[in-house]
Amino acid sequence: MVRVFLDTHRALMANPMRLRLRSFASSASALNWEGGVSMVQGASRGIGLEFVKHLLEKNEKGHVIATCRNPNGATGLLELKNQFAERLNILPLDLTVESTIEESAKSVTERYGSLNLLINASGILSIPNVLQPETTLSKLYKSSLMLAYEVNAVGPILVIKLGLIHRKVNALGNLAIPHMWPLLKAGGGFGTERDVAVVANLSARVGSIGDNRLGGWHSYRSSKAALNQLTKTISVEFARKKDPIACILLHPGTVDTDLSRPFQRNVRADKLFTKEFSVQKLLNIINNTKHQDNGKFFAWDGQEIPW
Amino acid sequence: MVRVFLDTHRALMANPMRLRLRSFASSASALNWEGGVSMVQGASRGIGLEFVKHLLEKNEKGHVIATCRNPNGATGLLELKNQFAERLNILPLDLTVESTIEESAKSVTERYGSLNLLINASGILSIPNVLQPETTLSKLYKSSLMLAYEVNAVGPILVIKLGLIHRKVNALGNLAIPHMWPLLKAGGGFGTERDVAVVANLSARVGSIGDNRLGGWHSYRSSKAALNQLTKTISVEFARKKDPIACILLHPGTVDTDLSRPFQRNVRADKLFTKEFSVQKLLNIINNTKHQDNGKFFAWDGQEIPW
Repeated sequence: MVRVFLDTHRALMANPMRLRLRSFASSASALNWEGGVSMVQGASRGIGLEFVKHLLEKNEKGHVIATCRNPNGATGLLELKNQFAERLNILPLDLTVESTIEESAKSVTERYGSLNLLINASGILSIPNVLQPETTLSKLYKSSLMLAYEVNAVGPILVIKLGLIHRKVNALGNLAIPHMWPLLKAGGGFGTERDVAVVANLSARVGSIGDNRLGGWHSYRSSKAALNQLTKTISVEFARKKDPIACILLHPGTVDTDLSRPFQRNVRADKLFTKEFSVQKLLNIINNTKHQDNGKFFAWDGQEIPW
Repeated sequence: MVRVFLDTHRALMANPMRLRLRSFASSASALNWEGGVSMVQGASRGIGLEFVKHLLEKNEKGHVIATCRNPNGATGLLELKNQFAERLNILPLDLTVESTIEESAKSVTERYGSLNLLINASGILSIPNVLQPETTLSKLYKSSLMLAYEVNAVGPILVIKLGLIHRKVNALGNLAIPHMWPLLKAGGGFGTERDVAVVANLSARVGSIGDNRLGGWHSYRSSKAALNQLTKTISVEFARKKDPIACILLHPGTVDTDLSRPFQRNVRADKLFTKEFSVQKLLNIINNTKHQDNGKFFAWDGQEIPW
């Protein structure tokens, strides 16, 4: 991996396109990522796709990396690519295949050199014949639990470990790499109006242990609790090392997506959000995230959720 | 599995030894499990072994099932077996091999018919060359996370799913099986002075997300958070179905065992407990556990721990 970093550093020095990305930071904009680079993991549909759309539309000079398992089948992303060819980069990434995470990280490193925003938007709740949200302990299977942990908890953290580049400008205005995590890298607010990079992991209120009054959904609930703990754990390290990264957890509400569709029957109409509404609310939270929000768990309306 | 249950029911009716176990309930005793059947999963050493010892010594008519991966190598258990031959039953159970959980459940079903106490005492924190408690995100590996989830979160819940027998005496004093979980079974307080069976899962304060101020130990922390959420989730179901089971989580403190030995350097001497002290405190909590404690997370001193 050392070699990759050295190459990156060299490429950054040599590639004016990449340095140009940094110069967009001065103008006011609706989003503080003006000119920044965002990555949305799990972007082929649902909330992830909506994030990509909003980021491209509202951040007119920003670049977006959208990852999904199968880019060729991601019709929503391909449509956006027609519209935003230059600013949208679609990469294949399957959370269960670590080499695809590494390839994405390498590709992002080579093309952009840093990230200002990473949204882990993927998540599994049910897969016909594979994973069912459990209604009772007697329907809990090891395979479901392990799959949920792999995709909902482990995957997003591996992306963070590999996916961010930490760079700063030193006092002389030169690009420097003062603290290089062997694998974790973060862009901080470099090139934007922000002073921190934001990592937003999509969690869910049902992942809250303290708020668990209905039971059921064992695999999903416990995988999100594991994700919450992992996110909190890495946020502590970011803070201790004074890294310019704020890592937050988000509950999008119950959103009308493929994930929630089988379970919408008991949701009150005014509690079932459109993707547009939820993503607008979540981007508002992300946009206002400050250093001191590092390690917190927010609902779509900005309220903190108990662990 | 239906067949096993029918066989169990039939065997219960036919086996006076098993019914005799129920008749020990009247006399006062230090522990409320007088005459009850307890199972300690992960009993070959450390806290698990200490639980077995205390339960045999303090509950003079109680029976104890002690499980571990390799009974032949469990010298501590074999010594206890010499002393308490009749009341100690050692069974092989490897949390990562589901068939061994099923075999244990079957064996307990056939020999005892019910359980009054189940303690999941196993847990992994470090295994040389396999699992290291992480000091930084850059040392976090998928294999470590998945192993920790498998052993610390999934395993104990599978034991609960398969290991308990739910039985009650109906109004006429006859043995009845009014509500049979397809796999989960619980003994309630049947045959003891208690009105609930207790499931105690050994968790750890470092599993608390709200209490996580130091970071690190990603795999262990998040696996315990997952265990906490799973335990809370099943406790909700036990309550809703009015099952006579209270399911609690316990933090034993930092105890002088093989698990903690590599990490004791920074522990103040008065905060490093002997196994005897910790198990005494934990058994005190278990002994006083009531229906309304179902789903709670207690430290060794009885204080509730935030999620």
